[in-house]
Amino acid sequence: MDGALEFSTRGNGLYDITARVAAVLPEDTGVLTLFVQHTSCSLLIQENADPDAQRDLMAWIERLVPRADHPDMAYLRHRSEGPDDMPAHIKAAHLPVSLSIPVQHGRMRLGTWQGIYLWEHRDDPHFRRIAWSLR
Amino acid sequence: MDGALEFSTRGNGLYDITARVAAVLPEDTGVLTLFVQHTSCSLLIQENADPDAQRDLMAWIERLVPRADHPDMAYLRHRSEGPDDMPAHIKAAHLPVSLSIPVQHGRMRLGTWQGIYLWEHRDDPHFRRIAWSLR
Amino acid sequence: MDGALEFSTRGNGLYDITARVAAVLPEDTGVLTLFVQHTSCSLLIQENADPDAQRDLMAWIERLVPRADHPDMAYLRHRSEGPDDMPAHIKAAHLPVSLSIPVQHGRMRLGTWQGIYLWEHRDDPHFRRIAWSLR
Repeated sequence: MDGALEFSTRGNGLYDITARVAAVLPEDTGVLTLFVQHTSCSLLIQENADPDAQRDLMAWIERLVPRADHPDMAYLRHRSEGPDDMPAHIKAAHLPVSLSIPVQHGRMRLGTWQGIYLWEHRDDPHFRRIAWSLR
Repeated sequence: MDGALEFSTRGNGLYDITARVAAVLPEDTGVLTLFVQHTSCSLLIQENADPDAQRDLMAWIERLVPRADHPDMAYLRHRSEGPDDMPAHIKAAHLPVSLSIPVQHGRMRLGTWQGIYLWEHRDDPHFRRIAWSLR
Repeated sequence: MDGALEFSTRGNGLYDITARVAAVLPEDTGVLTLFVQHTSCSLLIQENADPDAQRDLMAWIERLVPRADHPDMAYLRHRSEGPDDMPAHIKAAHLPVSLSIPVQHGRMRLGTWQGIYLWEHRDDPHFRRIAWSLR
């Protein structure tokens, strides 16, 4: 079974989409593929218990890939769409564009503390589409 | 076909699990999904020939994501579970939580030098569970 | 359906393989798995519009993982295959070895700006093999 999920983000941040994903799954057993159809946001499996863990993760990636107006990023050339754009592509390059999650009788086999997140890397709100397939 | 593999790690390090994975595969052709049900360890395909390559990889990630008691990581807030915990979540965020490996007649189509590793990011020994599905 | 794609790279760089992948797909619906059988190159979904975006991405990874003869990398031990070899393994460890892409009636459900790239991390030209499976 195949489908698409659509999300409106409020700009940069981690959005827990676990319940939205769980709600569309049929009663089948197989593997769920989630695939985000964009190059400036990511999918992520992460700790869903302590909000500080998500805050720290965002603080870390901002240090790893600073905005284009940061002195360390003076070498960037792709700048026409704003200082958050090329860093968003870089983040999207080394965080998952797709997730493959085993499913049993319509339930994802996630660990106790695992949540599924859509990670918006752009500053402005964006409309994001995730293609899914359960086989 | 679906199942789960369980491992007891001896703490931080790379564990070659290729043989353990190969041993559970049925004689089918399809795609094997491995999915680790935790947020402080990772799955990895890497060079299996020179132990120095694995040592260098571990040295590199320690420099990229130092422990929480390192001065560079003073901004971290999620600290209740020890200085190795939040760095473990960060490593788990940008290394694979799942692997998708084509299988032919029960044999994984790995390259000559590719091994499958479970990467334990925590200092202490942990019990780790990997859900798998071959479709 | 299963197969393999073979590429000859001209050394370090991003190679757009989208058309080559699209050309081998049968008229089926399912999920395409691409799996690169090497530990010193990667697969990537990235922006296919502005060549500067690809150039910036390459500039960024060279700064994140410098060559083994850079002073910052003095701790590396796996050096017998040249200064570009261990950095290539490190890049391969945290960029995708496999991609899972939903397919509808033989067409990949890629976003408008998404292209599929083979990222050669070695300096010299290499022969690279990608196993694929559509299920």
